[in-house]
Amino acid sequence: MVPEAPPSLTRLSLNQQTIKQWSLPELADGCATAGVPGVGLWRAPVQEYGPERAARLVRDAGLSVTSLCRGGFLTATDPAARAAALDDNRAAVDEAATLGTDTLVLVSGGLPDGDRDLAGARERIADALGELAPYAAERGVRLAVEPLHPMYAADRCVVSTLAQALDLAERFPADRMGVVVDTYHLWWDDSVAEQIARAGRGGRIAAFQVADWVTPLPEGVLLGRGQLGDGCVDLRWFRERIDEAGYGGPIEVEIFNPGLWARDGAELLAEIAERFREHVL
Amino acid sequence: MVPEAPPSLTRLSLNQQTIKQWSLPELADGCATAGVPGVGLWRAPVQEYGPERAARLVRDAGLSVTSLCRGGFLTATDPAARAAALDDNRAAVDEAATLGTDTLVLVSGGLPDGDRDLAGARERIADALGELAPYAAERGVRLAVEPLHPMYAADRCVVSTLAQALDLAERFPADRMGVVVDTYHLWWDDSVAEQIARAGRGGRIAAFQVADWVTPLPEGVLLGRGQLGDGCVDLRWFRERIDEAGYGGPIEVEIFNPGLWARDGAELLAEIAERFREHVL
Repeated sequence: MVPEAPPSLTRLSLNQQTIKQWSLPELADGCATAGVPGVGLWRAPVQEYGPERAARLVRDAGLSVTSLCRGGFLTATDPAARAAALDDNRAAVDEAATLGTDTLVLVSGGLPDGDRDLAGARERIADALGELAPYAAERGVRLAVEPLHPMYAADRCVVSTLAQALDLAERFPADRMGVVVDTYHLWWDDSVAEQIARAGRGGRIAAFQVADWVTPLPEGVLLGRGQLGDGCVDLRWFRERIDEAGYGGPIEVEIFNPGLWARDGAELLAEIAERFREHVL
Repeated sequence: MVPEAPPSLTRLSLNQQTIKQWSLPELADGCATAGVPGVGLWRAPVQEYGPERAARLVRDAGLSVTSLCRGGFLTATDPAARAAALDDNRAAVDEAATLGTDTLVLVSGGLPDGDRDLAGARERIADALGELAPYAAERGVRLAVEPLHPMYAADRCVVSTLAQALDLAERFPADRMGVVVDTYHLWWDDSVAEQIARAGRGGRIAAFQVADWVTPLPEGVLLGRGQLGDGCVDLRWFRERIDEAGYGGPIEVEIFNPGLWARDGAELLAEIAERFREHVL
């Protein structure tokens, strides 16, 4: 925990991609200076910097690593592609363990080219999770299945609802397999309150991420997330449901938005902290 | 029914927007020539041509109008905007009656600016449907609530699943309120087979529309629908579920895609008929 974290920020974690204009040292320094106690990291910049070195950097800054993004992409039908995906996920587990986080976020993967079988793809994910979960558990890492918005079902993630993510996770012990609740992906779903409660009862909430929904969506629909409060998601309602479900852990701000990436990092982080107080707490 | 319609095309209806490069006379002539017996029309081109004149044109060509797109946008909170929306929907009912179709497709509307209350918006839709249904019934028109993909929930349609559409429709008698099953909007949903069966049991399937899902999605995500067979939707699986549910009516091809609009209409319609045989029937 960063010693000077004001009470309003004790649950705030900054996902690295939100201010991706920052290098890892800038991120560590910027968060420590702003009193933001947690960071969510991504594999590519961590690999580039070196996992052990990155772990030392954030530890020395007094930060906790709330999650590593991301493993997954487990839907290949080709045996060689599947084996490569499993290897890559074991490497992601190793990196998470090195960074000292207990949460590896998994984006499950879309449909292989020419494939139209969503149910089959979800079964291949379950099989792959079964292979990965013991490896991760031995290293103190819990896998966290993240449902992505249905607009990504074809090319990125066939797990589109929290119910589907829980259906997968509940095949495994709760200390090995959790789920990610991300407001951007789930805000439209009228069953989400019920499913958050289900996740809480089972001890399955591994991470809670927040971003707002703004339109129009950009081409490719990857980089159109909104700053907290700029869109139509009732973020506080989500946080209250999460709290009621018994999750008291970090709240990770994860926004992919080129408009934010063009700004000064420290100024942006101050705005995020302010929006977090105003719209989430 | 177009006399020369080959057996494989008896259920095919061409939604006007799929070949929007065609004028209404070109559409009527093109469909009759190709043996396509039905057309789904849109309000703007019908209004421009004149509803009575359009009705005569398609009747003289031997075509049936399978639906009119579209009414709806019923989520306004401002009383004047709400009254204007109801007036506009009554006009849409009149146009549908003039065209001789019994199906007016409704796209419910998104969240008003600054509003974050999805459940409230859905209740306003229910209220508006209650006002419109008797007016439509008197004119022989059934309202058809169309669930749109969740990526449109903010700005276009807060009704995102077939279950939600049925929850709305079932508040009214089945002969007054149906639903639209559109593969583009519903393909990702693992409850859709169950909900199609529910819709069939209740006699609620007012229209069945087909388009394929292709990626990447374009900016604004409106005009990225795929030609039948080009994407990842199991169209035949949908048609089989629809048939099992007891719906034997027209199957409307509704694709919004600038690549298709740039092509020769007759050639495109021939391709659509071929793809329809190959991927839907």
